[in-house]
Amino acid sequence: MSLPVTIEQNTCCVPRITASISLEEAERSARVFKAIGDPTRVMLLSLIAGSEGREACICDLIEPIGLSQGTVSHHMRILTDAGLVAREQRGKWAYFTLNDGALEAAADALRPAALGMAS
Amino acid sequence: MSLPVTIEQNTCCVPRITASISLEEAERSARVFKAIGDPTRVMLLSLIAGSEGREACICDLIEPIGLSQGTVSHHMRILTDAGLVAREQRGKWAYFTLNDGALEAAADALRPAALGMAS
Repeated sequence: MSLPVTIEQNTCCVPRITASISLEEAERSARVFKAIGDPTRVMLLSLIAGSEGREACICDLIEPIGLSQGTVSHHMRILTDAGLVAREQRGKWAYFTLNDGALEAAADALRPAALGMAS
Repeated sequence: MSLPVTIEQNTCCVPRITASISLEEAERSARVFKAIGDPTRVMLLSLIAGSEGREACICDLIEPIGLSQGTVSHHMRILTDAGLVAREQRGKWAYFTLNDGALEAAADALRPAALGMAS
């Protein structure tokens, strides 16, 4: 004999709140924020932003950061992979410029209205 | 107050470029970005932002996130410690609201002008 099954309505129904961004959007945003979530990389972005023409050779980033070229290159690779800077090789050295659009997009994603706005 | 960071004068000369933010500022910004640098935490912020009154009980965050209460609490603690949300205990449950000021400050820190501007 089977008894009627009564499911608790309060644990089974439509969630009361839903996220307005997709998991893919959250993953994309998180990847960018993770790239900036390191003091050395914030300093590197600041150094490039403050450079003449807002462009910097990696040879000029090493000294102010005070770390080895290999370590600075590693951090720059993370920023490049996240799309926050653009890299251009000129002879021996790599030059970096800020990707203003990516920085603006990351800033916009943090606006409370954008976080809660259904798209 | 932030001073230009000038490290390692010894090699030859004054560094050609200097960061316009201090190491302390970079560390503070990085801590906030690291807290948001995780897809689950971006989703949690979005859920709270989309909630009625922009406030959410942790009991309503667990189901849409699809993780255990302990894991969701852990993520909420990281967001609270970074100052991105405010937590209020009401009886059995914790309620969270977005700290709009902290989100705006993080967004502003990403503006290319802010990154490169001596303050």
